Amino acid sequence: MSNEFEKQEMNVTGEGFLPGLAIDTVIFGFHDNKLKVLLLTYKNTGLFALPGGFIRINEDVNEAARRVLYSRTGLIDIFLDQFYVFGDKSRHDIAPLKTIMQAREFTPDDNHWLLKRFVSIGFYALVDFTKAIPTPDSISDSCDWFELDDLPVLMQDHRQIIDKALQTLQTNLDHKLIGFNLLSENFTMGDLQSLYETILNKKLIRAAFQRKMLSSGILERVAKKWTGGAHKAPYLYRFMAGR
Amino acid sequence: MSNEFEKQEMNVTGEGFLPGLAIDTVIFGFHDNKLKVLLLTYKNTGLFALPGGFIRINEDVNEAARRVLYSRTGLIDIFLDQFYVFGDKSRHDIAPLKTIMQAREFTPDDNHWLLKRFVSIGFYALVDFTKAIPTPDSISDSCDWFELDDLPVLMQDHRQIIDKALQTLQTNLDHKLIGFNLLSENFTMGDLQSLYETILNKKLIRAAFQRKMLSSGILERVAKKWTGGAHKAPYLYRFMAGR
Repeated sequence: MSNEFEKQEMNVTGEGFLPGLAIDTVIFGFHDNKLKVLLLTYKNTGLFALPGGFIRINEDVNEAARRVLYSRTGLIDIFLDQFYVFGDKSRHDIAPLKTIMQAREFTPDDNHWLLKRFVSIGFYALVDFTKAIPTPDSISDSCDWFELDDLPVLMQDHRQIIDKALQTLQTNLDHKLIGFNLLSENFTMGDLQSLYETILNKKLIRAAFQRKMLSSGILERVAKKWTGGAHKAPYLYRFMAGR
Repeated sequence: MSNEFEKQEMNVTGEGFLPGLAIDTVIFGFHDNKLKVLLLTYKNTGLFALPGGFIRINEDVNEAARRVLYSRTGLIDIFLDQFYVFGDKSRHDIAPLKTIMQAREFTPDDNHWLLKRFVSIGFYALVDFTKAIPTPDSISDSCDWFELDDLPVLMQDHRQIIDKALQTLQTNLDHKLIGFNLLSENFTMGDLQSLYETILNKKLIRAAFQRKMLSSGILERVAKKWTGGAHKAPYLYRFMAGR
């Protein structure tokens, strides 16, 4: 669901936005072989949520996702991918929305557009979290990285949204990694294996991993990495162009 | 967009349905090494379209997709997967909708809910088309298989929706094939290669394909196929359980 409660969205009918449709973004942060996720905390509510928002009537859905992420977190130039539409009727849960609005001294009418059933389009990205530093504006909610294996209780179905995003990331790792731009241009097989192991959350057998990667057709060998002891230097690879 | 113009959907406000949200289904048919797609033809309009419809306020989005497919084509027990949300504002194109309604002697008010901007959730499936025989009801639109490389002009952005579905199918072939249940329980490497070649629309090198499949961990070898000449009999494989 939606976490964007700007003044213009407080009107009862939601004028200017597509009705019943929200966006939620799952931003995975990777660094130093750790995986984190970006969450908002709503002041005076104890509620944790994914950065989310709504689609303006005159904007594309994919464009809205980038705007929403930027307006909630200050992050820009994040390559977001759609991954799933959360559309079960059971996800309709107005209590946390009322709590958030009331914490801002706004008591919504029962007919308020934000209290109706919403379908949410999930977007995800994987970024180097040392390069993506969230900067919410000072009077609004805070926004921080949380360890994936130590998440707080999240509002509505946001935990399921994260789980589904992680599952998608794990399934599509071979196709997605190139676009995510997480490794330096040239990297060793060991660097690549660490990235896979962190995201898949399991140890991989070195020989089998190397064989799979080399036969995948997505890597090209660049040169040996210079380490001083040439006979032990690992090869460097890069992702092939045009993929 | 949406192709469901039952009486109850002819009302101006679209009461009973989620506003601005549609479903389109891309059903690929595979048989005898050919790939086809299921299209509706709207009588007296010359318009071709994907089977589509809307989401009831009291039903899950995924449930709506199955209902829509059944109501438009008679097909049941088709395993549908979401693949993309089509949400560009440029896809708003009311001319074909007016044509369809007028062919049914209904002239919509400009304010009619079906003429507003819709975001469409794309679902796809791959079925054996000899086992999935569309049976639209007699007074409604016809529904037939069309060769993928010889499609008619389609209404709105339905051609792009098919292209995106095909691209998704090609990318996810390794993960998806098992669920699609297109091969008999036991099959030869040659059967599997034919299926891949048809969907990817290119010839594959036999040795490389076999190596990739055997190292993928999704196949297990069952026995040699009995062909009379035992020394030339190919091995039979099946997909591993629990995947």
